[in-house]
Amino acid sequence: MNTNNGSVNELIDQLGRLPGVGRKSAERLAYHLLRVSKGEALALAKAIRDVRENVSYCSVCYNLAEGSLCEICRDPNRDTSKLCVVEQPRDLMALEQAGVYRGMYHVLLGRLAPLEGIGPDQLTIDPLVERVRRGNFSEIIMATNPNVEGDGSALYITNQLSEFPIEVTRLARGITTGSVLEHTNREILADALSGRQKI
Amino acid sequence: MNTNNGSVNELIDQLGRLPGVGRKSAERLAYHLLRVSKGEALALAKAIRDVRENVSYCSVCYNLAEGSLCEICRDPNRDTSKLCVVEQPRDLMALEQAGVYRGMYHVLLGRLAPLEGIGPDQLTIDPLVERVRRGNFSEIIMATNPNVEGDGSALYITNQLSEFPIEVTRLARGITTGSVLEHTNREILADALSGRQKI
Repeated sequence: MNTNNGSVNELIDQLGRLPGVGRKSAERLAYHLLRVSKGEALALAKAIRDVRENVSYCSVCYNLAEGSLCEICRDPNRDTSKLCVVEQPRDLMALEQAGVYRGMYHVLLGRLAPLEGIGPDQLTIDPLVERVRRGNFSEIIMATNPNVEGDGSALYITNQLSEFPIEVTRLARGITTGSVLEHTNREILADALSGRQKI
Repeated sequence: MNTNNGSVNELIDQLGRLPGVGRKSAERLAYHLLRVSKGEALALAKAIRDVRENVSYCSVCYNLAEGSLCEICRDPNRDTSKLCVVEQPRDLMALEQAGVYRGMYHVLLGRLAPLEGIGPDQLTIDPLVERVRRGNFSEIIMATNPNVEGDGSALYITNQLSEFPIEVTRLARGITTGSVLEHTNREILADALSGRQKI
């Protein structure tokens, strides 16, 4: 890479720090940014700056927000009796795109991962418990990821909330719409059988 | 995406314009840039700005350069009797990394692609011919990509240079080191046979 100059190397290095972007991809992206119009390249630089200058976490639910409250917490039309607990803002976004839930959210900003040293203190569990204590929720929906760490986090939080007379639920598990039974693995089929629903 | 705010959407849009970055990847990259330290995110923004502010094309060979001449054209230790013609600065970089060539380069900034409306005028062919006319080269090496458009470009340029008593060569073609003969396709084997070398 010594055939090139410092600015290009620096850009390749910085791009290479992005997740899923290896050395070759970083070079390709850097050359793309050199080839497009200056306006387009600088628009990306500006978007990165703006997002870091303007965006922080909602003071209530820890979703991303441009002010002290996120759009969902500011929305007067949401159902404030339901609270959905997710790991990350992008999980919230995925659920919103499904378009079936109109309640509130709480973003943990991670999941319990003892092997990585991530305990309850690094997440927003205390604010969640406090929020449930003061709030008037009738149902808490655990929407952590369906894996060991997500399930563990949901279980831990459910225990923390056991003092409140509130129903705690979790997302349904089963076969996915559009999948093929014979290619579905046994864990998924076991979930689908044990959680079978009346039709 | 209406659950989120303008800055995040703008960043996702801008990242989604990068080659090979779809909507989902753009979202993932945006959340990465929101999660890392502010310094790291801004370093990427700065690298993009810097590269577009500082980097332009070498006035001699059209490689990327931070001044009017690129590092290779500035280097007094290069062999000025050889000229290697490549399509893009990244091709030049790949050849330099191979570490066997110490001559000069000329970057076409593209290849002839009549179907896309890219003709000789959009490339740096005129400056190349002028450079060869005034220069003292003993060999021109065509290192365009080994595909229809690269080969066509090399052929066109070879014709343009036919008035000069200079040897024009192209990169060797054949089987690749480390490959397996039985899995090598017939075009490659044909190249390898017709270009067979004495041992």
